[in-house]
Amino acid sequence: MEEKLRKIKAFAFDVDGVLTDGGLLADLNGEFYRVFDAKDGMALRMASMQGYGLCIITGGRSQSITRRFIASGIKEEDIYLGSRDKMEQFTDYCTRHSLAPEEVMYFGDDLPDIPVMAACGCGACPCDAVDEVLAMADLITNKPGGKGCVREAVSSVMKLQGKWNLNTEDYKKKF
Amino acid sequence: MEEKLRKIKAFAFDVDGVLTDGGLLADLNGEFYRVFDAKDGMALRMASMQGYGLCIITGGRSQSITRRFIASGIKEEDIYLGSRDKMEQFTDYCTRHSLAPEEVMYFGDDLPDIPVMAACGCGACPCDAVDEVLAMADLITNKPGGKGCVREAVSSVMKLQGKWNLNTEDYKKKF
Amino acid sequence: MEEKLRKIKAFAFDVDGVLTDGGLLADLNGEFYRVFDAKDGMALRMASMQGYGLCIITGGRSQSITRRFIASGIKEEDIYLGSRDKMEQFTDYCTRHSLAPEEVMYFGDDLPDIPVMAACGCGACPCDAVDEVLAMADLITNKPGGKGCVREAVSSVMKLQGKWNLNTEDYKKKF
Amino acid sequence: MEEKLRKIKAFAFDVDGVLTDGGLLADLNGEFYRVFDAKDGMALRMASMQGYGLCIITGGRSQSITRRFIASGIKEEDIYLGSRDKMEQFTDYCTRHSLAPEEVMYFGDDLPDIPVMAACGCGACPCDAVDEVLAMADLITNKPGGKGCVREAVSSVMKLQGKWNLNTEDYKKKF
Repeated sequence: MEEKLRKIKAFAFDVDGVLTDGGLLADLNGEFYRVFDAKDGMALRMASMQGYGLCIITGGRSQSITRRFIASGIKEEDIYLGSRDKMEQFTDYCTRHSLAPEEVMYFGDDLPDIPVMAACGCGACPCDAVDEVLAMADLITNKPGGKGCVREAVSSVMKLQGKWNLNTEDYKKKF
Repeated sequence: MEEKLRKIKAFAFDVDGVLTDGGLLADLNGEFYRVFDAKDGMALRMASMQGYGLCIITGGRSQSITRRFIASGIKEEDIYLGSRDKMEQFTDYCTRHSLAPEEVMYFGDDLPDIPVMAACGCGACPCDAVDEVLAMADLITNKPGGKGCVREAVSSVMKLQGKWNLNTEDYKKKF
Repeated sequence: MEEKLRKIKAFAFDVDGVLTDGGLLADLNGEFYRVFDAKDGMALRMASMQGYGLCIITGGRSQSITRRFIASGIKEEDIYLGSRDKMEQFTDYCTRHSLAPEEVMYFGDDLPDIPVMAACGCGACPCDAVDEVLAMADLITNKPGGKGCVREAVSSVMKLQGKWNLNTEDYKKKF
Repeated sequence: MEEKLRKIKAFAFDVDGVLTDGGLLADLNGEFYRVFDAKDGMALRMASMQGYGLCIITGGRSQSITRRFIASGIKEEDIYLGSRDKMEQFTDYCTRHSLAPEEVMYFGDDLPDIPVMAACGCGACPCDAVDEVLAMADLITNKPGGKGCVREAVSSVMKLQGKWNLNTEDYKKKF
C-alpha cells in the first residue's frame, strides 16, 4: 500500500457520500443542495498549494458543487458534473493532465465508482460506502462520508510524501 | 419471509422518517424542505431500470418531494402528496397498475402507515420507526430512516430476485 | 410521577433544543431556520385531536416557528415568540385557558426554562438538556432534542390517560 | 490549568468546526450557510452580560456569520471574516481592547488556529479537532464542534470565576 501511495500525484473524487454524507436538500425547482465539510476543504487547499492535481467526477448536476470546489482550489475544467459513466471522465482527466491512472487516487462510495476505483492507483472509500465498494477498495477511511474522510486520506498521502505543511504566506496569496 | 420477498414487483414508500430522517426544514411561508439520501436514490434508479413499480404515499404536501422522486425515476402520477388515509392511495396505485397487494412492499415508520403495512405483501420499516410500527413490521432494516434504509431493503429484494445489476448503458439512457 | 401525569391537560414547549436539536441555520438577513421532527409533529396533532391544550414559548423570533406549529394544530395565539421571561407567557397562557399550572407539562432544555419547569405540573426535558435543567427536571426523555423527545413524553402521557388513538376520519377533517 | 482559567477576561473563536460541526451548505452563488447551536449562543449571551470580551476570527466570508453573532451579543468590529493569518487579527483584537494574550481563551480546531492557540492564555478545542490541534491544546472539551463545545468551556470558566448566573432583568434589557 505504501508503495502505491508514494506514486500519487493527483486526487479525484465522487461527491455524494464522499465529500458529503449523502444528504441532498431538495428545493421546489428540483435543485439539490449539499453540506460540505470544512476540514475536507482545508485538505483540498493544502493539496492544491503543494501542486497535486484535483478532480471531481459526480453524477450530480448542481452548479453549487462547482462553486464550492472552485473555492477549495479545484479548476473549473476539472469538475465534471452529470457523469453517467465515470471512466469516460476519469480517462479525459488523466489524458488532459498527462497522468497515468496509477498516479491518481480516486474516492468513491457507490456502484458507479467501482470501475474507476479498480482502474486507478488507489481506490479509496469512506467506512460507510456500500458493501460492493467496501469489498474492493484499496483504502477504507475511519471517517464516514462528509465527516472528514477526504481529510483523513489526503493528509495521510501528503504526510507520507513529506508535503503536509501549511505555509501562511502561500495560503494568503492563493486563497 | 423469502417467499414473500420473491413475489415483490413494486415498492411503495412513506417519505418522512423513511426516505428522510424525519427532519423538516421550515421556511417563512410554511413550506417544509427535506434532506434525501443519495444511496437510497441509487436504489430507486436501479429498481426503475429493472422494471419494478415505484410509488410514494406521503402526508407531506411539498412539490420538492415530487421533484426529488421524478429525478429518481418515479412517475409523477405515482407520487401521492397530502395523504390522510394511506389505504385509499395504496388501493388506487395497485388498481391502476394491476398489482395484487401481496406484490407490493410498503415502507412506513409511523401510525398512519400501519394499515398499509398490514395489507401489503411485506411491511418494512427502519430501525428507528415508532414502537407500534416496529411491533407489527415484517421487515426491520438495520439502517435508520434517511440513512440508507431504503437502499438496504430494495437491494436485498433485488439481489434475491437476481436483478441487482448496474448496466451503464441503460443508466446513461434513462437518467 | 404517575399521579402528576394523570392531571396533565395541556403541553407547553420551548423550541430550540426541545422541538429541534438546537441547530440554527443562519441566512444573510439575520433570520434563523430550524429543522423540526415529523414524529414530534404527529404527537402534537394526536394531542390536538384529543383536546389537549398546546403552547409554544420561545426566545426565537422567526415566523417559520409560527408557520410550523400552526400546521401541527397549535393556535397562533398560543405561540409566544421573542420571550425573555418565560413565566410571563406561561402565566398568560394558563390564565387565558383557565388552566392550573399543575395541569400543564412544560418542556425545556436551558436556563430560561427553569422557572417554568419548577412552576408547572411536570417539568420535562430531553436527555441532552444542560446540566442545570437535568438536575431539576421531573421527567427526562430517552430521546434527545429534535429527535423524538416530544413524541416520547406526549405519547406516554396520552397512553396513561387512554387517549393515544388515531382516528383516520378525525385526522382527515382536522389536518 | 485553574490558574490559567482564572485570568481569562475574553473569549475568541474560530467558527467552522468550533461554533459549527464543520458543515457548509453551498448555494448556487458560492455562498456558504452554517448551522449554529442554541446552547452555545446562550453561553455567548451569558458572557456578554457579565462583561467578558468576545471575538470571532474566521476564514469564512459570509455575512450570515456576522448576523448570527451580533444577535449573540458580539460587537460587529470584533468579528473578523476572511482571515488568512489569524495572529494578525488576534493581535489587533488584543490591542484594541488592551488585553494581554494570556487574558484570552482562543478556540480552534484546525491548522490555521495553532499559532493563536499557542500564543493565547488557554488554547481550547473540541474533541473532534484535527490531530495536530488535539496534540497541542490546553483544553479539550467533551463535546464536539457545533454541539455545545463552546457552552461547555465558557460556562466552566465563568463558573470558576463565580459569574455563571442568569439575571432575567439584564437578559430582557440586553437581548
